[in-house]
Amino acid sequence: MKGFAMLTLNKVGWIEKPKPAIGPMDALVKPLAISPCTSDVHTVWEAALGDRRDLILGHEAVGEVVEVGSLVKDFKPGDKVIIPAITPYWETVESQMGFHQHSGGMLLGWQFSNVRDGVFGEYFQVIQADGNLALLPDNVSVEEGVMLSDMVPTGFHGADNAEVSYGECVVVIGIGPVGLMAVAGANLRGAGRIIAVGSRDICQKAARFYGATDTVDYKAGDIVEQIKTATGGKPVDKVIIAGGTLEAFEQAMKIIRPAGIISNINYLGSGEYIKVNRVDWGLGMGHIRIIGGLMPGGRKNMERLSNLLKYKKLDVSPLLTHRLKGFDQIEKGLLLMKDKPRDLIKPVVTI
Amino acid sequence: MKGFAMLTLNKVGWIEKPKPAIGPMDALVKPLAISPCTSDVHTVWEAALGDRRDLILGHEAVGEVVEVGSLVKDFKPGDKVIIPAITPYWETVESQMGFHQHSGGMLLGWQFSNVRDGVFGEYFQVIQADGNLALLPDNVSVEEGVMLSDMVPTGFHGADNAEVSYGECVVVIGIGPVGLMAVAGANLRGAGRIIAVGSRDICQKAARFYGATDTVDYKAGDIVEQIKTATGGKPVDKVIIAGGTLEAFEQAMKIIRPAGIISNINYLGSGEYIKVNRVDWGLGMGHIRIIGGLMPGGRKNMERLSNLLKYKKLDVSPLLTHRLKGFDQIEKGLLLMKDKPRDLIKPVVTI
Amino acid sequence: MKGFAMLTLNKVGWIEKPKPAIGPMDALVKPLAISPCTSDVHTVWEAALGDRRDLILGHEAVGEVVEVGSLVKDFKPGDKVIIPAITPYWETVESQMGFHQHSGGMLLGWQFSNVRDGVFGEYFQVIQADGNLALLPDNVSVEEGVMLSDMVPTGFHGADNAEVSYGECVVVIGIGPVGLMAVAGANLRGAGRIIAVGSRDICQKAARFYGATDTVDYKAGDIVEQIKTATGGKPVDKVIIAGGTLEAFEQAMKIIRPAGIISNINYLGSGEYIKVNRVDWGLGMGHIRIIGGLMPGGRKNMERLSNLLKYKKLDVSPLLTHRLKGFDQIEKGLLLMKDKPRDLIKPVVTI
Amino acid sequence: MKGFAMLTLNKVGWIEKPKPAIGPMDALVKPLAISPCTSDVHTVWEAALGDRRDLILGHEAVGEVVEVGSLVKDFKPGDKVIIPAITPYWETVESQMGFHQHSGGMLLGWQFSNVRDGVFGEYFQVIQADGNLALLPDNVSVEEGVMLSDMVPTGFHGADNAEVSYGECVVVIGIGPVGLMAVAGANLRGAGRIIAVGSRDICQKAARFYGATDTVDYKAGDIVEQIKTATGGKPVDKVIIAGGTLEAFEQAMKIIRPAGIISNINYLGSGEYIKVNRVDWGLGMGHIRIIGGLMPGGRKNMERLSNLLKYKKLDVSPLLTHRLKGFDQIEKGLLLMKDKPRDLIKPVVTI
Repeated sequence: MKGFAMLTLNKVGWIEKPKPAIGPMDALVKPLAISPCTSDVHTVWEAALGDRRDLILGHEAVGEVVEVGSLVKDFKPGDKVIIPAITPYWETVESQMGFHQHSGGMLLGWQFSNVRDGVFGEYFQVIQADGNLALLPDNVSVEEGVMLSDMVPTGFHGADNAEVSYGECVVVIGIGPVGLMAVAGANLRGAGRIIAVGSRDICQKAARFYGATDTVDYKAGDIVEQIKTATGGKPVDKVIIAGGTLEAFEQAMKIIRPAGIISNINYLGSGEYIKVNRVDWGLGMGHIRIIGGLMPGGRKNMERLSNLLKYKKLDVSPLLTHRLKGFDQIEKGLLLMKDKPRDLIKPVVTI
Repeated sequence: MKGFAMLTLNKVGWIEKPKPAIGPMDALVKPLAISPCTSDVHTVWEAALGDRRDLILGHEAVGEVVEVGSLVKDFKPGDKVIIPAITPYWETVESQMGFHQHSGGMLLGWQFSNVRDGVFGEYFQVIQADGNLALLPDNVSVEEGVMLSDMVPTGFHGADNAEVSYGECVVVIGIGPVGLMAVAGANLRGAGRIIAVGSRDICQKAARFYGATDTVDYKAGDIVEQIKTATGGKPVDKVIIAGGTLEAFEQAMKIIRPAGIISNINYLGSGEYIKVNRVDWGLGMGHIRIIGGLMPGGRKNMERLSNLLKYKKLDVSPLLTHRLKGFDQIEKGLLLMKDKPRDLIKPVVTI
Repeated sequence: MKGFAMLTLNKVGWIEKPKPAIGPMDALVKPLAISPCTSDVHTVWEAALGDRRDLILGHEAVGEVVEVGSLVKDFKPGDKVIIPAITPYWETVESQMGFHQHSGGMLLGWQFSNVRDGVFGEYFQVIQADGNLALLPDNVSVEEGVMLSDMVPTGFHGADNAEVSYGECVVVIGIGPVGLMAVAGANLRGAGRIIAVGSRDICQKAARFYGATDTVDYKAGDIVEQIKTATGGKPVDKVIIAGGTLEAFEQAMKIIRPAGIISNINYLGSGEYIKVNRVDWGLGMGHIRIIGGLMPGGRKNMERLSNLLKYKKLDVSPLLTHRLKGFDQIEKGLLLMKDKPRDLIKPVVTI
Repeated sequence: MKGFAMLTLNKVGWIEKPKPAIGPMDALVKPLAISPCTSDVHTVWEAALGDRRDLILGHEAVGEVVEVGSLVKDFKPGDKVIIPAITPYWETVESQMGFHQHSGGMLLGWQFSNVRDGVFGEYFQVIQADGNLALLPDNVSVEEGVMLSDMVPTGFHGADNAEVSYGECVVVIGIGPVGLMAVAGANLRGAGRIIAVGSRDICQKAARFYGATDTVDYKAGDIVEQIKTATGGKPVDKVIIAGGTLEAFEQAMKIIRPAGIISNINYLGSGEYIKVNRVDWGLGMGHIRIIGGLMPGGRKNMERLSNLLKYKKLDVSPLLTHRLKGFDQIEKGLLLMKDKPRDLIKPVVTI
């Protein structure tokens, strides 16, 4: 079969590989819609995972089940399914402890385009299908559905880890597609004021669509000052970091209240240290929590989040700025994500 | 001063009382808008609190501060404030443990028209003003603001105690004003499907406005059967009980999933026992939690919830079906609440 | 192979069955020590699960791995392992939601002597071995280890669900082996005063060993009155129900504080309703939570709890009042559990 | 009245001040036993709070109530009371949100020897007496009781914030009196293995008394290496930082598991930044939480923790290595804390 792969560092291309063999709990799936991710860009052009040879890329897909293992109970060939970016082994001690994202070791719940070939192939293997697939609701398109693989769960995880509650003031730093979903997630947890930090018009506009009450442009000056001006100096309840550099943590610490939460969902690709200012942190006694986490994967989370689309609580269509058609357009999609034109939020390729 | 009072069981009327004397942490407030509550009806005509003589009624108000005690720091005469129905003493052990609703004893955070005269007087005393008042936001009307005293926090507490999360299926039994706010609260916590149980058209319509995806009319047949039919037999995640009789608990137990939560916010005025079916409850091992709680009061909760109005995340105007004008209209408002005409959700009296 | 089985209602005996066939994720285990449980008694003589034919009994065992499936990574023949009473499928949506006890349906995490043959056979099958076995620590005997299958996790789950915290006053109703472990669990969560309700001397003595500060004998009078006298009328923080009849819930409600928790771990074998007194429950607004749950199973929980034995934080030897030797002694052990002589806490059979 | 004060930076001495005037909710208390704290040393000799003139020191005391304000309900002259180091105003929004430690602003729940005169005077004022005093149990001595002011709640808060649960492996860095109470707190939350990091014999011995299973001497080599050797390279569940320099955070990050918690209770007196290694932190996606917090104060927490002494669940006597007698011995006690002889854990002065 064909697949679009990282050939080596800084080099991508089409390769031929045998169709994956599946185990008794697994499924073989062919993609119906895929979306490239900034993480793919990190992997190829920023050596985020080190060198990899001939690794098929991609971890966001809606697909059709082609074959299932003998122990799979709930899915069958022909089913249209959402494939989450995170597809762990579920029997591990880590999964049992509630952090399947690190099933088998730190970040190892992330299998596609990391531990195994990704979804940019004619076929791909999904381990433990009963635990890692979810049916696509009838009234959700494949393009919308693919936003459930990574963008929605990652953004919403940021809001969950921030423990956003009714009426709180939440700052979201970075409003690419993940940050926009953090805005939407905060809004759907009942936030009051939501201050979205980002520069591009299309992103600011989408942020307001998703519930942001204020937007702050980091190109217009120091964001700490801008946010303090907006709130009259009052510290904010929560900060979700969905973009920017490591400096975002220092900025967050300057605007947050005692007992606030700084919740990171940004893949931190470079830099040696996140720095926590001792005085801003209340000399270690201010109860300001810092947490960062990989999105939850698996079937149940997909089912819960897909309900939001099914019942019209969330509209992901404003994310889908670039729609491509055809398996061979995957490369173009990935390069869009790499080059980030000003009118891009997220490309999707239907197959 | 004048006040509208419970004279004795089944009897209300206007009385004359001296203006309340306030302590050093208290405020004296005059009402700008009030709303009568079903609880007032329970108190007078259902002996819910036993007999009371010459007790000024009412616990929902927006008002103007007239006088403050010597230790009050944050409020001054002339301030327009929201007064929550629950105004506890904050230094008690119960408040310190996180359940100020029971400050000093079960339900004793509820002061107005219970432990002390209510808000249907020319003036009323608010204990611990810095802890129990909140400024009315500039862009919120007094009529809207008064919905924050009880309807919004009670309904939202039902959703909080149910720990509603993204995409869950939530049933709300009873869609008077409190149940409607439970629907809104569940929606603002990210529920997926929301099934609202109620009979009147105006309430069903409002429920859909607040996020209900389905409505069920208990007059059209057994609600357990109707809900099971709607979900295809799949149990629901959470049930919020905001009306009905004690039987609602048995119904809830028949539709809920293992490890679901039944969250009661209904003032249970009569009956001896809530009954939990042993088999439905998983022989005591099904992890189905049952919880019921009085709304949280105090300043901070008012500030958080008023943010939802201030930032246009919640619109309470559909609740306000009957608007009266003048202090002397309080009686009429209360009788509306007692008689519940079909087109009533909630009356408000501006003064 | 031979197994000791429920032949039909009220009838037990030895039967011959083929050795179980195992799947690719499973293990075949032979018992080294087993313990009969009151649940086995319920099953046979109280029709708790309805009629069952030729079902091998038992769900508490330490054993030796004899064979493993092709996908098992962490266990191999010869390993000495603890087998938890609850051995769920881990990829299900219920497990993903954090309640593997109901994996696949209410209580279906309980497999042995329920859904499949139990551990009182020469061999038994453990599904998903990597998720459901735990190595027996070197310094823990097989007799002690078998207390980890059910007694320790069930009792400790009662304390966990009660959210016992430092210095709280906890009542444990019922101090058979499970209730004793609830006492130990409450003590290991930092309870202050622990009031243990039970009648037999040996149990009261063991309760004090495990941290009870007071014992109350239900044969000496109404326990509500006795507990109120002991506390000077002050309500208690938490109640764990580990024995008694459905009436225990009403008693618990009479002694608990607002916002307290009633945590049930008693298998409720008969009766139609648990009754919650409306007034004691604060008219539905007292924040008193009621929860009951089957013990958590699986590998990780076994590993955590076995650490308590390994590091000498918990001594289960006082539970082991009757030690029998030989596979053929299983019947005698079970009858001991059925007849409950006054000097019995728990029998164990080594093989 | 006389008081032992910080005269200015690096200078202490006895001063004369008027007896404090108390408000209607306050109490005037005279000390029966006090204990100097490392924080007093930080304040005087390390400029931790900047310069202060004639500030009476001390925040750990057991005392006798001398006078109460007109609104105080639960205490009267003659009562023997524990005074927590943290005595907040309880009606503030911060207290209502559950972090009274920051009532009125970051760390402002800490009043004694910070915002107002401390407990090293003949008399001292306790604000909101009903909320901030607790009766000393009859069977607890004043010397033991004074450990409840700061050492026990601070150490136990470290274990609480680390969410220690049954059988976990916990590292405590720093085993002065606070670190020892963190060991005891972790043990009373059911930790399995507890690795205590400290150098002095007396502290290591006390750590084992309080439940440490292993001790590591930082003078014997890199603690990361020592701990990894002890665990066979397995990461630990939780780290409590109760001493050391800012470097302790980097060490903690090298030994902790994905989704572990680093809980700081060390007053961080100097240095600009806490540094979080990006890779160790899982590229921002490892779910490792970092939290640091000032101890909870107030009456209820004192009552809960004093129950542990009352019911013999905790023995603080091993902390009390130096017992002095007489008001004039306060200076000697403070200098002991400053000079930290090898046989010192904690001095106490009875008056």
